[in-house]
Amino acid sequence: MKPLSATDNLFLMLEKRQQPTHIAGLQLYDFPEGAPANYVSRFAEELRQYNQPVAPFNQRVTYRFGRPYWKADSQFDLEHHFRHVALPKPGRIRELLALISAEHSNQMDRERPLWESYLIEGFKGRRFAVYSKQHHALMDGVSAMRLGTKMLSTDPNERNMPPVWAFDLKSKSDAKLTNRLDATTLVAAARAGIRNNLTAIPHVAKAVRDAWRKSKTDSAYTSIFQAPQCVLNDRITGSRRFAAESFSLARIRAIAKAFDATINDVVLAICGSALRDYLLDQNALPDQPLIAAIPVSLREDESIGGNQIVTILANLGTHTPDPAQRIQIVKASVQEAKQRMKTMSQQEIMAYTALMLTPAGMQMLTGLIPRWQAFNVLISNVPGPKQPLYWNGARLRGMYPVSMPLDRLALNITILSYHDQLEFGLTACRRTLPSMQRMLMHLESGIEALEVAAGLSCSHRNEMELSW
Amino acid sequence: MKPLSATDNLFLMLEKRQQPTHIAGLQLYDFPEGAPANYVSRFAEELRQYNQPVAPFNQRVTYRFGRPYWKADSQFDLEHHFRHVALPKPGRIRELLALISAEHSNQMDRERPLWESYLIEGFKGRRFAVYSKQHHALMDGVSAMRLGTKMLSTDPNERNMPPVWAFDLKSKSDAKLTNRLDATTLVAAARAGIRNNLTAIPHVAKAVRDAWRKSKTDSAYTSIFQAPQCVLNDRITGSRRFAAESFSLARIRAIAKAFDATINDVVLAICGSALRDYLLDQNALPDQPLIAAIPVSLREDESIGGNQIVTILANLGTHTPDPAQRIQIVKASVQEAKQRMKTMSQQEIMAYTALMLTPAGMQMLTGLIPRWQAFNVLISNVPGPKQPLYWNGARLRGMYPVSMPLDRLALNITILSYHDQLEFGLTACRRTLPSMQRMLMHLESGIEALEVAAGLSCSHRNEMELSW
Repeated sequence: MKPLSATDNLFLMLEKRQQPTHIAGLQLYDFPEGAPANYVSRFAEELRQYNQPVAPFNQRVTYRFGRPYWKADSQFDLEHHFRHVALPKPGRIRELLALISAEHSNQMDRERPLWESYLIEGFKGRRFAVYSKQHHALMDGVSAMRLGTKMLSTDPNERNMPPVWAFDLKSKSDAKLTNRLDATTLVAAARAGIRNNLTAIPHVAKAVRDAWRKSKTDSAYTSIFQAPQCVLNDRITGSRRFAAESFSLARIRAIAKAFDATINDVVLAICGSALRDYLLDQNALPDQPLIAAIPVSLREDESIGGNQIVTILANLGTHTPDPAQRIQIVKASVQEAKQRMKTMSQQEIMAYTALMLTPAGMQMLTGLIPRWQAFNVLISNVPGPKQPLYWNGARLRGMYPVSMPLDRLALNITILSYHDQLEFGLTACRRTLPSMQRMLMHLESGIEALEVAAGLSCSHRNEMELSW
Repeated sequence: MKPLSATDNLFLMLEKRQQPTHIAGLQLYDFPEGAPANYVSRFAEELRQYNQPVAPFNQRVTYRFGRPYWKADSQFDLEHHFRHVALPKPGRIRELLALISAEHSNQMDRERPLWESYLIEGFKGRRFAVYSKQHHALMDGVSAMRLGTKMLSTDPNERNMPPVWAFDLKSKSDAKLTNRLDATTLVAAARAGIRNNLTAIPHVAKAVRDAWRKSKTDSAYTSIFQAPQCVLNDRITGSRRFAAESFSLARIRAIAKAFDATINDVVLAICGSALRDYLLDQNALPDQPLIAAIPVSLREDESIGGNQIVTILANLGTHTPDPAQRIQIVKASVQEAKQRMKTMSQQEIMAYTALMLTPAGMQMLTGLIPRWQAFNVLISNVPGPKQPLYWNGARLRGMYPVSMPLDRLALNITILSYHDQLEFGLTACRRTLPSMQRMLMHLESGIEALEVAAGLSCSHRNEMELSW
């Protein structure tokens, strides 16, 4: 019996019907070459043989004197966790995303190990899908993604590869998962944990006052005080909509080069463009630009390891119809925010982040209204595997993060790089943000607009069908 | 806000991971004549239009000062409750029952109205299935079955028929659901509610003493003290196995006539035969005959209405290999038990039933060991619709009850009559009773053995594939 960490427990405490705190990943695979039509059924039989899960997949939450502990599940039942299901006809992306949307709305069974894995057949074109759902208390999104790719191989001929719940991480020497917290963790921790950071507040008050003063004199400056009110920040319900799309990394790189910007800048500008178009459709675009919270690395050279990840706020430039102007606004606001972070100590950064992310924290210092919101949307851009990966000969065609909207943060956008693609996963409250899946088309339009603005040829198309 | 009845609340209190307290029904339909291949998808679209559920399907449980109430769900989300899913290939009964087994293992979301309905496509042979799951707190099994058939029509040409959650019972004059409690309710209420019946115990003590005395002198007499220890009465886990089969009512009637027995007697004898064969396979057949608890009507003429339903114990004759002897034992024990009930007042019957059904109650009076069990298995035989029914032109081909094993009652057998069939639904803990689905074959063998013993021609075969 091992006690849950404070962060893990946080996600149990934050969970409610309107706000389930699980995360997931969707992987799309091609059938291996020469596989028979009933390949998925056979594969399901194979996977069922792995009925002895390794930690943490065999651990469930138990309480002792009111404190939560991890404990091995003595009644582990693989049939609850591993499910072989099929898409209704005609088995398009539309049916797949509908299934994921429905399953992602369901809270997990707290009395069992907090994971589920769906092997999905009936996906047309000799493909299948895997939807892997974990409670955030079990594993954060980045760790789940890394574990889910560590178990894969660059060798299309490798076989007898176990599923993730039976994959012994220790058997791979390079496979140590970092303890990097994902953006969702930071936000949730900040929202709930502000009291723990109170001791750091004196260090931070000056930075807050500086930001406040600057916001009044410098209109181009993205302060932490200017996120507009927006439908994105209404209360959420328990209904989820998931939408996903792959875009060519080469297209994004070409745009970044043309504007002397980073990949991350381009991603944010595209998101800004899509949010603008979506909110215009909904007749709900604020006059002021939307503000995104994004986790970034403060190190210029990421190869030396030990990333220092902080959450900064970026101006998405949604107020302007001009794509070139938008990307310049994004770029400037990201650079400015990084610069500010670099002048602060680690403790100051933590406390500052907490203040920035939590309305309660801000209210304490400023006396602003509770409805006040420091940012409108959470956008995470996570580096993923650079080479094509295979699972028992099945090529991983795409992988999409399915994340966690929070109350007053009805949309989560997580982007993952994989081989030559950028994989966008959009997870939202279906009621707060109706027809959110249209954002996929708006993302494509956003890329095309930047290509036109940069004078690039606009010939590439995205890889998945836009079938919604 | 309406408070939950004590019985409804009981099922919330009894629920735990190992013992979910929901029940369900599985209906199999033929496609309507001339329906296109994508009929089920279209039908799903139609059903999604019914997004305003009627009571009780719009009610969720809420707590006020620690007491549970029913309250309309202001965030009702049909996509959580109605799900369009597909069977993996090849879409046989095997895949269907595997899906039902898995879904029936999942606890329901207590924060939402306590029902789910699955429209299942990919069932081979131009068929589809509907799995309707309700928490027992919302509706007992018999009421659910009746409601689920009231909404159907005997007219194959009727259209625009709503799903059960939008079916307004009040619009049909004859549609009042009786308040008849099903057997599961009786058992659960007796187990948990024994204290409430304490005042009646003096009235009952004499009957108990009589039974005890008689059990010592009359070996053919089914007392309430002779249920043998059996694997059927081990602790259960949360894993379910569901198995179902249709048998020809004409075959059962012919056997009943040959042995001058009731349909119910024959059903019990067949169950006894199948249990004997199954337990022999498992090397776990007790020397003493198994005892079943069964709800019966005390009225000879059921047409006058106002059934008086009581739960009696019947000797299943599992100790003998002779089918003719077995049915005579069943018949005698049922008659004797009914006779005893008729000499008791309603209050005495209630209290007696409570004592009989609850080990705790018995222990109070007898000082027997806690492991003591009054009976081994719960068998309910419920009369259903006599005519073929249709839903928007789709003929109802079969309907099977999916019930609720309880701790120390690892198997529930519920039988439903429909048109010219007897529909057997067997629900068990998959771990306590491995390969329980083999009981389906043993049921068929049991019928054949009785046909041979009665000198009947044994030409009929059951209607569903025995594909496990």
